[in-house]
Amino acid sequence: MAGSIFGKCFTITTWGESHGPALGVVIDGCPAGLPLETSDIQCWLDRRKPGQTTISTPRKESDTVRILSGVFEGRTTGTPISLMVENTSQKSGDYSQIASCYRPGHADYTFDQKYGFRDYRGGGRSSGRETIGRVAAGAVAAKLLAALNIDICAYTRSIGPVSISQERFDRAAILKTPTSMPDYEAGKQAEAYLAACMQEKDSVGGVIECRIQGMPTGIGETVFHKLDARLGQAILSIGAVKAFEIGDGLWASQAKGSENNDAFASSDGAVIKQTNHAGGILGGMSDGSPIVLRAYVKPTPSIFRPQETVNQDGENITLEIKGRHDPVIVPRAVVVVEAMTALTLVDLLFEHMYARLDGILDFYRSVH
Amino acid sequence: MAGSIFGKCFTITTWGESHGPALGVVIDGCPAGLPLETSDIQCWLDRRKPGQTTISTPRKESDTVRILSGVFEGRTTGTPISLMVENTSQKSGDYSQIASCYRPGHADYTFDQKYGFRDYRGGGRSSGRETIGRVAAGAVAAKLLAALNIDICAYTRSIGPVSISQERFDRAAILKTPTSMPDYEAGKQAEAYLAACMQEKDSVGGVIECRIQGMPTGIGETVFHKLDARLGQAILSIGAVKAFEIGDGLWASQAKGSENNDAFASSDGAVIKQTNHAGGILGGMSDGSPIVLRAYVKPTPSIFRPQETVNQDGENITLEIKGRHDPVIVPRAVVVVEAMTALTLVDLLFEHMYARLDGILDFYRSVH
Amino acid sequence: MAGSIFGKCFTITTWGESHGPALGVVIDGCPAGLPLETSDIQCWLDRRKPGQTTISTPRKESDTVRILSGVFEGRTTGTPISLMVENTSQKSGDYSQIASCYRPGHADYTFDQKYGFRDYRGGGRSSGRETIGRVAAGAVAAKLLAALNIDICAYTRSIGPVSISQERFDRAAILKTPTSMPDYEAGKQAEAYLAACMQEKDSVGGVIECRIQGMPTGIGETVFHKLDARLGQAILSIGAVKAFEIGDGLWASQAKGSENNDAFASSDGAVIKQTNHAGGILGGMSDGSPIVLRAYVKPTPSIFRPQETVNQDGENITLEIKGRHDPVIVPRAVVVVEAMTALTLVDLLFEHMYARLDGILDFYRSVH
Amino acid sequence: MAGSIFGKCFTITTWGESHGPALGVVIDGCPAGLPLETSDIQCWLDRRKPGQTTISTPRKESDTVRILSGVFEGRTTGTPISLMVENTSQKSGDYSQIASCYRPGHADYTFDQKYGFRDYRGGGRSSGRETIGRVAAGAVAAKLLAALNIDICAYTRSIGPVSISQERFDRAAILKTPTSMPDYEAGKQAEAYLAACMQEKDSVGGVIECRIQGMPTGIGETVFHKLDARLGQAILSIGAVKAFEIGDGLWASQAKGSENNDAFASSDGAVIKQTNHAGGILGGMSDGSPIVLRAYVKPTPSIFRPQETVNQDGENITLEIKGRHDPVIVPRAVVVVEAMTALTLVDLLFEHMYARLDGILDFYRSVH
Repeated sequence: MAGSIFGKCFTITTWGESHGPALGVVIDGCPAGLPLETSDIQCWLDRRKPGQTTISTPRKESDTVRILSGVFEGRTTGTPISLMVENTSQKSGDYSQIASCYRPGHADYTFDQKYGFRDYRGGGRSSGRETIGRVAAGAVAAKLLAALNIDICAYTRSIGPVSISQERFDRAAILKTPTSMPDYEAGKQAEAYLAACMQEKDSVGGVIECRIQGMPTGIGETVFHKLDARLGQAILSIGAVKAFEIGDGLWASQAKGSENNDAFASSDGAVIKQTNHAGGILGGMSDGSPIVLRAYVKPTPSIFRPQETVNQDGENITLEIKGRHDPVIVPRAVVVVEAMTALTLVDLLFEHMYARLDGILDFYRSVH
Repeated sequence: MAGSIFGKCFTITTWGESHGPALGVVIDGCPAGLPLETSDIQCWLDRRKPGQTTISTPRKESDTVRILSGVFEGRTTGTPISLMVENTSQKSGDYSQIASCYRPGHADYTFDQKYGFRDYRGGGRSSGRETIGRVAAGAVAAKLLAALNIDICAYTRSIGPVSISQERFDRAAILKTPTSMPDYEAGKQAEAYLAACMQEKDSVGGVIECRIQGMPTGIGETVFHKLDARLGQAILSIGAVKAFEIGDGLWASQAKGSENNDAFASSDGAVIKQTNHAGGILGGMSDGSPIVLRAYVKPTPSIFRPQETVNQDGENITLEIKGRHDPVIVPRAVVVVEAMTALTLVDLLFEHMYARLDGILDFYRSVH
Repeated sequence: MAGSIFGKCFTITTWGESHGPALGVVIDGCPAGLPLETSDIQCWLDRRKPGQTTISTPRKESDTVRILSGVFEGRTTGTPISLMVENTSQKSGDYSQIASCYRPGHADYTFDQKYGFRDYRGGGRSSGRETIGRVAAGAVAAKLLAALNIDICAYTRSIGPVSISQERFDRAAILKTPTSMPDYEAGKQAEAYLAACMQEKDSVGGVIECRIQGMPTGIGETVFHKLDARLGQAILSIGAVKAFEIGDGLWASQAKGSENNDAFASSDGAVIKQTNHAGGILGGMSDGSPIVLRAYVKPTPSIFRPQETVNQDGENITLEIKGRHDPVIVPRAVVVVEAMTALTLVDLLFEHMYARLDGILDFYRSVH
Repeated sequence: MAGSIFGKCFTITTWGESHGPALGVVIDGCPAGLPLETSDIQCWLDRRKPGQTTISTPRKESDTVRILSGVFEGRTTGTPISLMVENTSQKSGDYSQIASCYRPGHADYTFDQKYGFRDYRGGGRSSGRETIGRVAAGAVAAKLLAALNIDICAYTRSIGPVSISQERFDRAAILKTPTSMPDYEAGKQAEAYLAACMQEKDSVGGVIECRIQGMPTGIGETVFHKLDARLGQAILSIGAVKAFEIGDGLWASQAKGSENNDAFASSDGAVIKQTNHAGGILGGMSDGSPIVLRAYVKPTPSIFRPQETVNQDGENITLEIKGRHDPVIVPRAVVVVEAMTALTLVDLLFEHMYARLDGILDFYRSVH
């Protein structure tokens, strides 16, 4: 494989370019018996769809998903689930500008270096539209997690200097604000900040936070496939994510052990942690506390100011990017973080099923 | 597998517990023809060996490595390389304290939750000694990288509040200071800080930085197996690492696009970037600039102050950890970061070899 | 994953059911720069298409392939290639007979046992139409092999008691005879034999042979991923194949070492084998002689005679299968054997590229 | 990896050469809680040990296994199990004869072609001693299968022209006869046949059969990871195996559908098959009948007659192999077939655990 396959037990293969006929994903390893219809997936895709707010590109795409296999009479059959979204609004426009030069902050140069040439139309495979496959598959994974009473909630934590406040946290706001912030007030501030950015033909970065509740304990494989390591790969594979944190990881690197250690306590017969600096993961396994992770996202590289760069002939040029682009990547990437988190959790939940002999014996006694 | 296998082309399987007879690693996929002797590996193991300074545990282990297979007449044969280090200083001591309770910040609780019980002697598989296999294999990977003129250099960037200064950067200091800092002055300050920590029966966290020079461009697979995503998994799989950053990733999440974009320029016929906020990776592939990554490490969880916790019977207890433990994990983890980086780079360098048809045709024309 | 992913370097994921909207495959790991158009794939699919001869089912399907991604301006880009064939002739017929009973020799019973229920329309995922994805991907693999001057040729060796003669071997006949035999005379005999079978409402088995010429030496990985082991998995994964042989393997199991050993000899500076009982593979690696393999195929399980079986309520019933089915699987499976062989060879050719340090150094010196 | 890793859930990595310091295996993915001691493994290794009968090489090796990790207080912990056997009787003998020439039927030539050179001492990694790792890991897999009441029984079916009789089948004989035949009379005939072979300085091939009883139904993954396909790879990866058959596969390729189809019938509420030509596998999944497979093994390539071959300088030479070698590979390979079968079954049993949503929900309800 060359990078578009993810997961060991619940395995997805994504495909498609920004301006090709379609994009999609094949899920291999979805268990049989999950009720699944198009609307389960469509509502996830709608969250990343362009053209919905003043801060997202006006490209009009319905991003309508079709289920091409693996579902029969409303339930998954255990065979591969193929999901496809056709591109309808790609324009056969003028790409001569992009085709021959290397946009700063983009993958144009590295694609050419790796493969010798590239599909330059709209960024090809390095376009944000690549995430359609991730989100469609993530919707299926999230439905499995819901059946296990595991809840994932991602949202914008900050945009540029504007951060949410825990006091004003309102989950309903995430889907209602253009910024995907769970805080209406911070959302308004961030919108104003973004308007100023757009005025200056500039863009800005931000931080996405994701919380998982209801995770069974002991999930994650020791050593290389720790839960945090696998979540790290998943989140860092999202374009524009440049740093990843579990719990209070950044703070911990300057803290004392006596501050950072979470004391265990007994509570109604259950073991709990009195604090959660560890972000719900100890020794690479879920510890029963909420899992908290953060993705640090760079600013949109496409800005409308003139930029110095080089063309394919190695000549220094000044580039002025045309078209329209989101001034911030974060709000539309929130659902992608949620999707990648769901995919990782499902994969490790399945893998955990054969961790103990007694669990295996119980399974084969009851099922057969 | 259950987590102890890493890499797709250059694949390692590590094994062993802190107080078992031995620890080791098997490398499958090391190319034939690499000159390799025990000393190539021993010098890496010596960097993580305990008992060498005032800030590391006085457990005396020679950590002598043996090559058990895969090398013939001083060169690798292409078959699996088995490396083993025997434990010599494990004491059959009194583990009743650890055996029956959950140390805060440790994996005791999650191990029990996952597997039903655990090898409690010295932390078993969750001990820092687990990294012996990683480091031994990393030494072999680094030798391959050296043959390709790729240089990896990891070091301590900060311990608690004490950070290195770029002006005083001195690579030679890394191997000479107990802190693994490339800055003698900061090293002295950090040692003083650590002495105070130990006095207070406390520990502290820190940051490791790693720079890679000479990496060919275009290495890394698009979408899920991006170079930064794979490095992220590799580094986050090291116990105690709680956050991971590429280039100026944290800063970028608050920066403007006009600040963060690295302008391309032509220099003597080569394409270079005028700045390197991206940390040498664009679109998940190496871009020719130095690759820069950072691992944020939590404080040593074993501290000597009394701590509240729970025992296996679910009773609240106060725990006072005995023995001696490093007051900071960072200095001895530097070589582990270097090893995991080397392993990741070799893996993706091999995978890149079949990225283009012309490269494949050239290979089979010349080799056969 | 749950079984629909194949290959490590050149990785395919197939999907689709007999009576769903479409079937297809995603190829991840196809190198950039391969000229590829629909016709390259269509001609392979046309070889397995139904309705073309008196000995194949008259279901009318054009099996028209679409390339949905991974190709730009006539060349592969290195990103995933998504290929899709829409089902056009699936009838929303009466499946009550199949739905509620277990056809002998079919996967109905085991699918129900594994997944709890099944898509019973036309066999669902266990239909012969499942091979569309394999064949489409195999066409791409074969084009890569052709660029390396490697030739694969599969054909029917026998149908029931009728075998081809080496003296009458005529490669052109493979694509011209309904039986896919490279021998017009045997082909006629086999057609007569099949006509009699159909008269008796019966079916028959046969043998497919495949020869590979021009394979570089040393391809195949030692121990578990030997060339013959990987070819074995590939071929035995084709429905109805019940045995697999390399070279004169069956004969060898009764032969003497002095008979079976192939003597090496020097010929114009090259090392050749004077005989080829080994079928071109020694120690799991290609040895320079033609690779010869055989697939032993069971008779079509769908026959029109009344058969004893059980329904889903566990009642003994007599089943009379309706519709029309090929009286022999072999002729249309020939192209599937060729496809699976091509996929396996490409995968191992890519993996071999990092077997030796000198090859790696040469590659990075020349490419970068 | 380069071939020495096998299995996806229960993953083994084998290592070691015939004349290196040791050979071994690391198992990653063995569930916690399996009682395991050295003797469980030793009795399997003893079955493949040389020097025990007149028909096996007199090399004296105790092949004593050590458990180096993954077991604590007599039970597996869920962490990697490292098993090692030290070579004690390798002679630093004269290998100049083997070192410089290519033995017919051996891997000398292909190893040199792949890797550029080889460890020629006793065949290096292509020695039969390579199977030590497989057998040691297979013993652990078999112990897991026993806990699930799954029984594997392999034995010699034929040596040269001498076959066992089903009427005289006596399981106890397998471990008692030098030929590993479950038939004392055929065993005696085979011993006489082998004595004659040795007299003629020749060797002979044979067939190993393996039967699995008690397998749950529905095990095996559709399409590429069918149970028969995975068993095929496993068995064909054993050196000297040149063909593989499931059930009556060879016969089926000449049979009629009406003969080969196994009728289903209801028996005490259970679905059974009235015959078992399918060898216990339908559609790539276990069907509840005994699984029957056969490995066709070539004659020992080391024979004492003069043979024509080529040396490394490309000169034609006559080779007379010295030392002593088994005149037949089959009897000592029986336990290897059993081991590879056990490893494959465990792997697919684990993978099956997440095939259905209801099974997953039950698991997480009961375990957590």
